[in-house]
Order: sequence, then structure tokens, then C-alpha cells
Amino acid sequence: MTGQRSDARRNYQRILTVAEAEVAARGAEASQEQIARIAGVGSATVRRHFPTRRALLEAVFQERIETLCERAHRLHTTGNSRTALLEWLHAFVQYAVSARGFAHILSYEPPIEEPSPSSCGSRIEAAGTPLLQRAIRDKAVAPHITFHDLLTLSVGIALATEHHKDPATQADRLFHLAVEGLSPGQGGAGVPGDA
Amino acid sequence: MTGQRSDARRNYQRILTVAEAEVAARGAEASQEQIARIAGVGSATVRRHFPTRRALLEAVFQERIETLCERAHRLHTTGNSRTALLEWLHAFVQYAVSARGFAHILSYEPPIEEPSPSSCGSRIEAAGTPLLQRAIRDKAVAPHITFHDLLTLSVGIALATEHHKDPATQADRLFHLAVEGLSPGQGGAGVPGDA
Repeated sequence: MTGQRSDARRNYQRILTVAEAEVAARGAEASQEQIARIAGVGSATVRRHFPTRRALLEAVFQERIETLCERAHRLHTTGNSRTALLEWLHAFVQYAVSARGFAHILSYEPPIEEPSPSSCGSRIEAAGTPLLQRAIRDKAVAPHITFHDLLTLSVGIALATEHHKDPATQADRLFHLAVEGLSPGQGGAGVPGDA
Repeated sequence: MTGQRSDARRNYQRILTVAEAEVAARGAEASQEQIARIAGVGSATVRRHFPTRRALLEAVFQERIETLCERAHRLHTTGNSRTALLEWLHAFVQYAVSARGFAHILSYEPPIEEPSPSSCGSRIEAAGTPLLQRAIRDKAVAPHITFHDLLTLSVGIALATEHHKDPATQADRLFHLAVEGLSPGQGGAGVPGDA
């Protein structure tokens, strides 16, 4: 059994490594069959480890999501609550713009497939929500705004700029445009990247 | 020649009718081969009329784009300039949310494929830009905002909500959130649909 298990673990790692390269090259459309072929395993083996395309993509993005979550935790105790929220959201948008396929999987609401507390969306929501709540308590963000709104709008910015010549610059423009709507008052503490 | 031309016209119409149904059912992923099969013509015939998937989608959306453009022209001479811009943008977002594949083709900047003045994006931009310019002249919208920004953000709202349980409601929330950032001042004339 131990031999089988370590075989399975090696297969999992090999599939994941191939999947990372394929998703970087092809985004969310990366083919499970192609990944199986390159990894030298059967399609059934890929599907056993990653039953859905979404499960595969979530595994690919796991490490970066961890980094985003840790950053949220650090920001939660520091500085101005509006600045902390915006700094984190901006990092999230930048990552979504740079990582092909990431915005795509987040555009599916968790309940559509398995609503797992370990899904990308759930983990990001758990990490980012306290930043929003603190900013709302400080009256730095309008109280009717939900974390889901912020996440969905950020995902939309990444999806809409994906095929642009300079996605990062256009995404930044749209982020600024959207954020100016965050403030219940007159713009307030500004946006990361502003002079 | 006349017989051949009217055959071509009939083929064009038949392909377009099938394409409309397929795009409504499958969105931008509708297969040109499948459309050829249902229309009873060869794939080469489909490609002769519609050399690219984008050309096919643009033809499918043509009529509704006409309606949106006419609405922009009417609004240009009526009422408050900010309200006119927002009413039109809101109609645009609603259509993008309801018409599968529409936001997808608009997410490609025109110059990437043939930059034609008759492309969806160009026609929408030509119709909507005067509404934005008027609102900027009236100091009802911040002067650094471009029509391309508004179009891209609206496209992003449609793309990010496409797989939601209730896309129209979530798109409306995000539209309101984004629009509150339009005003250089304190929100101003409000958003269509507000009480």
C-alpha cells in the first residue's frame, strides 16, 4: 500500500507540474488529455486526482492564493483600513491579470460545483472579508458593498482586459475607476499607485 | 451570375439564422462546423461568408447593436447629460448580460483582428462617445475617463457575472458600484433604476 501511495503522490506531483505549465501557456482552456499525455499517465489518472477542470485549476493556483491570504492577514492589523483593503485588492487584480485562467475559475460562483471551504473563492473570501469589514466599520467604504461585489468586479476587470495589448495598464485604469466608487464620501485615502 | 448571387444570399441568411440560435444556446463557443451542419452547407461556405468566428458573432449581434446606437443618438439631445450616459450604459450592460457571446467578442480590442469601422466595438464606440463627451463637458463625469474604459468595465461586468445564478441582478449591483466612481463630485444625478 505504501508503494502504491507514494506512486500516487509522485503521479500527482508530476501531473500538477505539467498542469502549471499548460495553464500558464493556455489558460483555463488547458486540456486534461494533453496534460495526461505530457505527464505520461492515462486520462483516468488525471481525473482521479482532479475530477473536474476546476479542481485542477484550483490546485495550480493554490500557492499564490496562500500568498494572497497571508498578505490579507498581515494587512488586517496595519495602517489605514481603506488603504489596507485597496492595497490587497490591487494585488489581487494584478495577480488575476497575470495568471491566465485564474479569473476564469473565480467567475464561477462556488455553489455551482462543490461548495468547498478549500475552494479558491472561499479561501480568498475568508481572507479578504475582514479587510472590507474593518473599512466599513471605519466608514471608509459604503456599507452596502459586499466582498463578493469586490471580488466579482475585480474578476471582471481581469477578464475584460485579458486580450488587450497591455492588460496590466488597462486593468489599473479600471481598478482606479471602480475604486473611486468605493468611498461613501469624496474619494478619501486614494488608491495604491497614485502619486 | 444573378442565380449564383441569390443562392449566396440565401445561404448567408440560412447560416445567419442557424448561427443566431447556436450563439444563443452556446455563446461565443458556438462551433462553425456545427452551424454548417445544421444549415446544410459545407464548412468552407460558412468560412467564405464569415472568415472568422468574430465576423460571425458580429453579424449575429448586428441588429441589437443598431438599436443601441439609435438609442444613443436619441439620448444625445435629451435631458441631463449624466443621466443620458448612464441610461445608455445601463442598457448596454443589460444587453451584454443577456446576449451570450456579445461581451466575449467585445473583450478583444478591435486592432487585434481587422480594425473595421463596422465592427461591433467601433460602432458602439462611435455611438456612445458623444454621450460621454457631453457629460464631461458638463463636469458630470471625471475628464480622465475614456469611452474605452466604460466599455471595458461594462464588458467585464457581463463576463464576471455570466455564470452566476442571477447575472442581471449581480451585474446591476456592480454597475452601481462602478458608476459611483464616475462622478468627480458626490454621486450627482444617481443611477438608472435607483428609487
